Amino acid sequence: MANNNNKKMVEQITSMDEDFAKWYTDIVKKADLIDYSSVKGCMIIRPYGYAIWENIQSLLNNRFKKTGVENVYMPMFIPESLLQREKDHVEGFAPEVAWVTHGGSEPLTEKLCVRPTSETLFCEHYANIIRSYRDLPKMYNQWCSVVRWEKTTRPFLRSREFLWQEGHTIHATAEEAEKETLQMLQVYADFFEKDLGIPVLKGQKTEKEKFAGAKATYTVEALMHDGKALQGGTSHNFGDGFAKAFNIQYLDKDNTLKYGHQTSWGVSTRIIGAIIMTHGDDNGLVLPPLVAPTQLVVVPIAQHKEGVIDKATEIYERVSNFVRAKIDISDNSPGWKFAEYEMKGVPLRLEIGPRDIEANQCVLVRRDNREKLVVSLDELETVIPQLLESITENLYNKASENRKNRTYTETDLDSFIKTAQEKSGYIRAHWCGDLACELKLKEIADVTSRCMPFGEQGTEGTCICCGKKTDKLVYWGKAY
Amino acid sequence: MANNNNKKMVEQITSMDEDFAKWYTDIVKKADLIDYSSVKGCMIIRPYGYAIWENIQSLLNNRFKKTGVENVYMPMFIPESLLQREKDHVEGFAPEVAWVTHGGSEPLTEKLCVRPTSETLFCEHYANIIRSYRDLPKMYNQWCSVVRWEKTTRPFLRSREFLWQEGHTIHATAEEAEKETLQMLQVYADFFEKDLGIPVLKGQKTEKEKFAGAKATYTVEALMHDGKALQGGTSHNFGDGFAKAFNIQYLDKDNTLKYGHQTSWGVSTRIIGAIIMTHGDDNGLVLPPLVAPTQLVVVPIAQHKEGVIDKATEIYERVSNFVRAKIDISDNSPGWKFAEYEMKGVPLRLEIGPRDIEANQCVLVRRDNREKLVVSLDELETVIPQLLESITENLYNKASENRKNRTYTETDLDSFIKTAQEKSGYIRAHWCGDLACELKLKEIADVTSRCMPFGEQGTEGTCICCGKKTDKLVYWGKAY
Repeated sequence: MANNNNKKMVEQITSMDEDFAKWYTDIVKKADLIDYSSVKGCMIIRPYGYAIWENIQSLLNNRFKKTGVENVYMPMFIPESLLQREKDHVEGFAPEVAWVTHGGSEPLTEKLCVRPTSETLFCEHYANIIRSYRDLPKMYNQWCSVVRWEKTTRPFLRSREFLWQEGHTIHATAEEAEKETLQMLQVYADFFEKDLGIPVLKGQKTEKEKFAGAKATYTVEALMHDGKALQGGTSHNFGDGFAKAFNIQYLDKDNTLKYGHQTSWGVSTRIIGAIIMTHGDDNGLVLPPLVAPTQLVVVPIAQHKEGVIDKATEIYERVSNFVRAKIDISDNSPGWKFAEYEMKGVPLRLEIGPRDIEANQCVLVRRDNREKLVVSLDELETVIPQLLESITENLYNKASENRKNRTYTETDLDSFIKTAQEKSGYIRAHWCGDLACELKLKEIADVTSRCMPFGEQGTEGTCICCGKKTDKLVYWGKAY
Repeated sequence: MANNNNKKMVEQITSMDEDFAKWYTDIVKKADLIDYSSVKGCMIIRPYGYAIWENIQSLLNNRFKKTGVENVYMPMFIPESLLQREKDHVEGFAPEVAWVTHGGSEPLTEKLCVRPTSETLFCEHYANIIRSYRDLPKMYNQWCSVVRWEKTTRPFLRSREFLWQEGHTIHATAEEAEKETLQMLQVYADFFEKDLGIPVLKGQKTEKEKFAGAKATYTVEALMHDGKALQGGTSHNFGDGFAKAFNIQYLDKDNTLKYGHQTSWGVSTRIIGAIIMTHGDDNGLVLPPLVAPTQLVVVPIAQHKEGVIDKATEIYERVSNFVRAKIDISDNSPGWKFAEYEMKGVPLRLEIGPRDIEANQCVLVRRDNREKLVVSLDELETVIPQLLESITENLYNKASENRKNRTYTETDLDSFIKTAQEKSGYIRAHWCGDLACELKLKEIADVTSRCMPFGEQGTEGTCICCGKKTDKLVYWGKAY
């Protein structure tokens, strides 16, 4: 019975090797992360999915606040004239915004777009509130939803509306702005690697791939299980471009008016897509413990026997003091429960039955590697937190191994094209810096530049496309 | 110097007795709660204002979660056809929604409104996910922004976009839905009274004032310092009206299909307006300690003297273990700092100077009544939490006193009209239940029915308007 149920559930997910895209959509539905609605291209984030997002918010808020960032809330509408103030910015975003043209039954005198990002609003606000060097820096962030009118959508990865945070800071000098841009990139890198167990490449985007209106865009890039890349978060240095467009000036100590220097940085619900595709397997979701809504589920074995549910409940209450725990005493068979919580990616399962109780022990089963450990009931307080930490580490190591195995270095164009056709992963190759070469590689090998990683620049090579000497090294790939 | 600064800041606020509306807008600006932008009718919530909202969210989330509520996120757009599914609902909201008609440069095939509230989306989702009695109840909530195209707007009280939470639940029976509606009303009442120190009337709205599509609307109503009423939160019982419109059926234990019974309930950033207008005074904001971003500010006295800043910092670090504290060691004079943190409504000020240090003591000053207490440094851990609690209590008592003084009972129409003209507050008067009388009172006395409080119904009287016998008692007033 247990096995049947188990089998039945597992059969419902497509295997990742068979069809990775289908496997992904199966998981987001079967693990109750999202639902579809009649609002095309938008998703409903269900309680289990939203709880992951709340944990992500809380971890990031803590990291942001340590650097002095404050949360605010800006209007969700941007008047057309305001969006147009910075030329590159409006060119980048106008083609994909949703326009509000009527309020009630009356046409608006000026149409409003639903924010695709809020640089323009923050700039207008900064112009209002900044007068002197004493007002600097301002380091603001907001959690909100943004809208981009995408043609093809996929839950978490690309949808017309998505949740994100957008940080917007303004500083007295170019140096401070650059420092902030890199600091926030490091905050993202630490969050991905230490909290989510997802290794990332930190580096700079090419001119072609940078944010509309930015001087420089930095990125943390993750590699998914199938070898496709995913941009995890970006941090932009705007220099004083926006400040000039919006006339954000401050009176400096030397009594002269100067323009502020700005940054912005953001991550979104895409992170949940990255978690699924980095750690998931054919049994479902595998959640990093720090963002798992339930970190440990207690499953009583032979629960009809006297004392089992009582003991299981006692343990559940005890572990609830230090982990997000759940107990399942429903009528479903243990096998059904095992499959259900594996599907939902719960990091640890605690099984306890009559024989365990007699021996003052329980069985702990890890979701990441399915390892079973028999543990004394006296040791739960020390063993469980250690195991959760070790799961994050193991997830990180497995993902690093995958990235290593899927990173190819190429030095001539034919091999580059062959690798792009036959393999899925990053291709490391030198690049001269010319847009023409970047576009050509897209055309002939269907790859885009993902990033120019810090620490891999400055060694001599030749452009994979035109053969020119260069010290720029790019990771190329296909991306979500 | 200290006095000058102090005076200068205080002069900047209009006194409440002189012009309450101006006093209010002065406070929201000078306490750095909001800023205006070029987005007409929308506000920017600045860090200090947003931190209050974050504290409100956290307190309410805890109260919600204890009753089994789970957070979700629904799309912000509603297709026109979906909004139209429930007749009363669309009539109530369609005149004041913002319409998205274009995505990028293309017109949409069906226009979308920006959610004014999300009943229709939750209903569609419930119809998708509910099959059997085992799937019930569902108790969902979302934190988001909503849009209503208001003609005249005021920060926090009425704006085209505002932040709120909307709970949406569905139950097997009418009884369970009614129980949930009243339970959530009680959650709001407890939150207002215990967490914010704002006394509320709990009661039912008249047919005229109820929510578009609801069977019954319950409300918690607060009375502002100036005697105008403010609807603090509402809880609606929908019966099975929406379930029928959206075909939300479940297979019950008896193997028959039945419609679900629904509720919704919400509070918004209006709460911040209520806090300002209930507790504020001519020196600025007065914040209830539980939502104050800073609960205690340490102000060193004669900070240039040796050891003062060190000692003040030591105390700041110590109290930070149990309150949200801040220390101000800027160059500004103590007087300037006193005025600044009074304006910002910080509940407690801790002053420490050379003589205090010598005597192992400090001075604690309450914002609510400006009482000064000399306290031994050994007692901070016990005295400060007690004081914060006592401040909430005192705020509650003061506001209750104001409400008592501004509640008038009338039994004949002439006195009713006279009171409505000459006084500002609630008028208690019987009402027959007819819409005609309610409309007439609006016309001749410019008051609306605020609520029919529980516990005040069932005593015989005569309708203040038509003289018919009735046991319905209504609180009438002017409202924000």
